[in-house]
Amino acid sequence: MDKKISKSVLKRLPSYLSYLKSLQETDSPYISATALANALGMGEVQVRKDLAMVSDGGRPKIGYLRESLIDDIEQFLGYDNTTDAVLIGAGKLGQALLGYRGFDDYGLNILAAFDAKPSREKTEDGKPIYPMDKLEPFCRANKVLMGIITVPGEYAQQVCDKLIGCGIKAIWNFAPVHLEVPPHILVQYENMATSLAVLSMHLQAQIKDNKENKSGRID
Amino acid sequence: MDKKISKSVLKRLPSYLSYLKSLQETDSPYISATALANALGMGEVQVRKDLAMVSDGGRPKIGYLRESLIDDIEQFLGYDNTTDAVLIGAGKLGQALLGYRGFDDYGLNILAAFDAKPSREKTEDGKPIYPMDKLEPFCRANKVLMGIITVPGEYAQQVCDKLIGCGIKAIWNFAPVHLEVPPHILVQYENMATSLAVLSMHLQAQIKDNKENKSGRID
Repeated sequence: MDKKISKSVLKRLPSYLSYLKSLQETDSPYISATALANALGMGEVQVRKDLAMVSDGGRPKIGYLRESLIDDIEQFLGYDNTTDAVLIGAGKLGQALLGYRGFDDYGLNILAAFDAKPSREKTEDGKPIYPMDKLEPFCRANKVLMGIITVPGEYAQQVCDKLIGCGIKAIWNFAPVHLEVPPHILVQYENMATSLAVLSMHLQAQIKDNKENKSGRID
Repeated sequence: MDKKISKSVLKRLPSYLSYLKSLQETDSPYISATALANALGMGEVQVRKDLAMVSDGGRPKIGYLRESLIDDIEQFLGYDNTTDAVLIGAGKLGQALLGYRGFDDYGLNILAAFDAKPSREKTEDGKPIYPMDKLEPFCRANKVLMGIITVPGEYAQQVCDKLIGCGIKAIWNFAPVHLEVPPHILVQYENMATSLAVLSMHLQAQIKDNKENKSGRID
């Protein structure tokens, strides 16, 4: 963790991990940077550099022991020490995230959800949904450092402020707004509405182009 | 749609929409750019410009009729003409997205999922899960233009190529890899594994700093 890591390296590591984990028992226990680069259609030099940054297990001409490399990448990404989190906003998106079992693989454990007006006491998977006044005592008691925001945009800033007041240091924000935070707090944005708008605009433009081309042919 | 729209405008529009929809029947039917800017803690000039880009319903001193402004933003974002999509990879993430009812609000309709080895024929919500050989006839028959990729990283490129072969023009990629596509295809990336890695790294660094500070005090 002493080396400064660029976000582009962080983006590539999960794909190495995903590929390494997909290999079968019957495959060789060793894998080289070259083999990995070829399999993923990436530059060999880049893969070699990335791997050297997260693991010192590479041996000339042999490569890395696959299992060790998986461990090294997971440790590097923090997947091995589970991060506990709270989620604020048990609406449609909040409930979908609460029910998503894949977060375990990334070391994320959502302990509980909080909502201004909880519509039920537990999710289908049995995760508790508490009213907002339980947030601070819960975060303090469980030493929670990560908060996930899935409330509508106009409530996101006040929820963010509340989370910081509860000792939260890292925020995963699914609300479609920018959040103001002190410098020691990290906000990671996940804006699915924007992604969909970008895709939808592209499709509208394509459909329009098609129509114009077709009418051009007829005229 | 004739004006060129920056991605930063697209990012702000969903938050205007979310706020406008949160207002009550009892609130005034009109809203000004100033009121909207104040409510969301944003710059008035920026909000004014953004709104002027999507709607010509603004009147001096009165502002916009709220319902019309909602319609204009939704139309601009393409939420009103529903986009049909197929989803490839009915694993944990794929099933979470299939079950997420909030996409309706954004005009996205996932018609069906496809999987190399479907573990079941339908999701809990009754959406069909088909084997991959049904993908092309399904996309052609339903004129589907959007594909959502939720397969593991190492299969994403081949799935992407297959989607393009089926007439797909816009791809929403949740796999943690970069995709090579022809220029007329748009790929929008949604990398939750990277987001989590970034947050997790931040927390690890914070915990480390805290420990060092504390041991510093004892020495």
